[in-house]
Amino acid sequence: MKYSDKILKTPSSFIRNILKVASAEDVISFAGGLPNPISFPIDALQETINKAMEVHGPKLFQYSTTEGYLPLRQYIADKYNRSYGLTIDPEDILITTGSQQALVLLSEVLINKGEGIIVEEPGYLGALQAFSLTEPTFYPVQLKNEGLDVEQLERTLEENPSIKFIYTVPNFQNPTGITYTAENRNAIYEVLKNYDVVLIEDDPYGDLRWSGEKLPYIGAGRLENSVLLGSFSKTVTPGFRLGYIITKNKELLYHVNTAKQATDLHTNIFSQIVIHDYLVNNDLAAHIAKITDLYETQSNAMLAAIAKYFPPTVTYTKPEGGMFIWVTLEEGMSALELFQKAMNDKVAFVPGDPFYTNKTNVNTLRLNYTNSSPEVIEEGIKRLGKILYEVTTKELV
Amino acid sequence: MKYSDKILKTPSSFIRNILKVASAEDVISFAGGLPNPISFPIDALQETINKAMEVHGPKLFQYSTTEGYLPLRQYIADKYNRSYGLTIDPEDILITTGSQQALVLLSEVLINKGEGIIVEEPGYLGALQAFSLTEPTFYPVQLKNEGLDVEQLERTLEENPSIKFIYTVPNFQNPTGITYTAENRNAIYEVLKNYDVVLIEDDPYGDLRWSGEKLPYIGAGRLENSVLLGSFSKTVTPGFRLGYIITKNKELLYHVNTAKQATDLHTNIFSQIVIHDYLVNNDLAAHIAKITDLYETQSNAMLAAIAKYFPPTVTYTKPEGGMFIWVTLEEGMSALELFQKAMNDKVAFVPGDPFYTNKTNVNTLRLNYTNSSPEVIEEGIKRLGKILYEVTTKELV
Repeated sequence: MKYSDKILKTPSSFIRNILKVASAEDVISFAGGLPNPISFPIDALQETINKAMEVHGPKLFQYSTTEGYLPLRQYIADKYNRSYGLTIDPEDILITTGSQQALVLLSEVLINKGEGIIVEEPGYLGALQAFSLTEPTFYPVQLKNEGLDVEQLERTLEENPSIKFIYTVPNFQNPTGITYTAENRNAIYEVLKNYDVVLIEDDPYGDLRWSGEKLPYIGAGRLENSVLLGSFSKTVTPGFRLGYIITKNKELLYHVNTAKQATDLHTNIFSQIVIHDYLVNNDLAAHIAKITDLYETQSNAMLAAIAKYFPPTVTYTKPEGGMFIWVTLEEGMSALELFQKAMNDKVAFVPGDPFYTNKTNVNTLRLNYTNSSPEVIEEGIKRLGKILYEVTTKELV
Repeated sequence: MKYSDKILKTPSSFIRNILKVASAEDVISFAGGLPNPISFPIDALQETINKAMEVHGPKLFQYSTTEGYLPLRQYIADKYNRSYGLTIDPEDILITTGSQQALVLLSEVLINKGEGIIVEEPGYLGALQAFSLTEPTFYPVQLKNEGLDVEQLERTLEENPSIKFIYTVPNFQNPTGITYTAENRNAIYEVLKNYDVVLIEDDPYGDLRWSGEKLPYIGAGRLENSVLLGSFSKTVTPGFRLGYIITKNKELLYHVNTAKQATDLHTNIFSQIVIHDYLVNNDLAAHIAKITDLYETQSNAMLAAIAKYFPPTVTYTKPEGGMFIWVTLEEGMSALELFQKAMNDKVAFVPGDPFYTNKTNVNTLRLNYTNSSPEVIEEGIKRLGKILYEVTTKELV
């Protein structure tokens, strides 16, 4: 039997395979990307569910509309308008089955085989997978400490008129933890306003900030083809698979709605109503503060351990929020080889390779800190540091 | 801005537009396809949820595996093995976000642009939509009272080597209510065993039988590339969006898993665990009997009213289960024109057009009976019958 070209080109998750190896009881794993269970407000959700059963009855269990539960879309619109001074209406929002689905839908709606997508280098693996299903040409643009390489962005757009959209994660990016600066955002906007392309700003981690100031989006409110993606996975629960697309481009959203309908008719309505009722009846800010306090402690513990135990030739990002630190080893080193050694010493991370569209054996790696205590973080980083010193010494000899 | 060819070719739901017109308070609507709310075991689900919160805790809310909750897959395997004498393992099953998602995933995995899909004529509109996203060539094969036209099926396969799969709904088909006979199933099997194609048997309504005997599947257990699709939407709740793919073809399921991962990572785990716990702790057979008793009464009321009020030139199917009756008007009549007249008299149905890949202004229409009382059914059919007599008389004049 023959399979489609697109599925043969779609990478199966490298990370999931690593997670299987890394999931042994005695392994200290920085490989995952799971939110800490502290982020699930279980008791409040149980209370909400019991009330919702009384109030909404059969509506929780029946087929529902493709665009999503109107009061939830209204809540999201209000939140963004309040936080960012935008003028979003519920009609500008479509609820998706996790923001992962938003990536597939947008790609399906915009991309013919071979057409271009600009992605961050390194970029979110799940997005690379989702986009692959439409067989695009990837144009990676380098992610620097301050954000996208604007010159490379402009050159890439100029040279490749087939480019349909640009995918960015401007806050606490996965895998790097980098946040685009205000200057970088403005510079990107100045470039994009001259091109007929869609800008996707995927922001699953935006609420998880413990340092620095919340920044305006690059395109929202000022670029005609601006798309924002959001999610409840990092602040309430990923198990419900609830994300959303926001755009003022009505034609684009109409087509996304058709694709969504063909894909799963609509998103789980029980979960949509429950999360809405939870959000309006609970103090979300206080709940998020609990999460960010924990992540800040964990991130600081990891940064301190890296400073203490890693060779000074190793560089790394210092996140202002989110879930990841990105480590760059000395030029020429292979994070994949390091991974093998690290597994022998029972510590795991994700080698950088799957976050690139066209590079292998890179010298970068991703560390997640949200599921280990400060003590475990110190021990794991100490083990990694020991290996790094050994490798570096051997290479010098 | 330019959109992809595939989204421009994907029909937006004709039915949804009709449902909007038909949803006015004073309209008797046979247009929908919703299960009756009697099918939602709300109290039992509430009890299950509260227990599940205690037993499973954070696991209900965390990210989960792409293939789905193992105990639920085990339950499904056991059910099919018991009911159909099959030898399905949990490893042969992948949980999808409604069986609608299964259609998209299979199409993505199998179809390159232009390759062939055999569909029933008339066929399930949602499947036509889902498949359209991969830009296939549709080869409709006529659905007769006893099932697929086997000669046409064989000829179509012989003449079109690009055909990758065949999509069927062998029990109480949507839109026709037709059930393939045992002979027809065997005849289809005899043809398909000679071709390297996938047979999809989509069976959302199979449990809703009130008459006749449960029949073996066409391909399950004997065709190498057999795929079964199932759903909890018609027996427990569609709001949870839970369906599944069963196949012994491990390579096919591996690719489906990759596509699923790219599409939404995994299906809502809260709903998967809750439905599993509900299924193992409750008498599903008794619950389903309650649904089929109601649907049988409603179906009989509609059939009796049709016999009484429709002109004798009108023919119609007599379902042994499921949710629909398919009506064929006199040759040359347009169900779409009838729909306009019917709306004036405040009664709605779905004209046949959207269930065909290449026909318009057909003389067929779909009636749903699961959401009206016998009295309302009689009144609605009476109104339709009056219009039909008027139209027929006019045409005779």
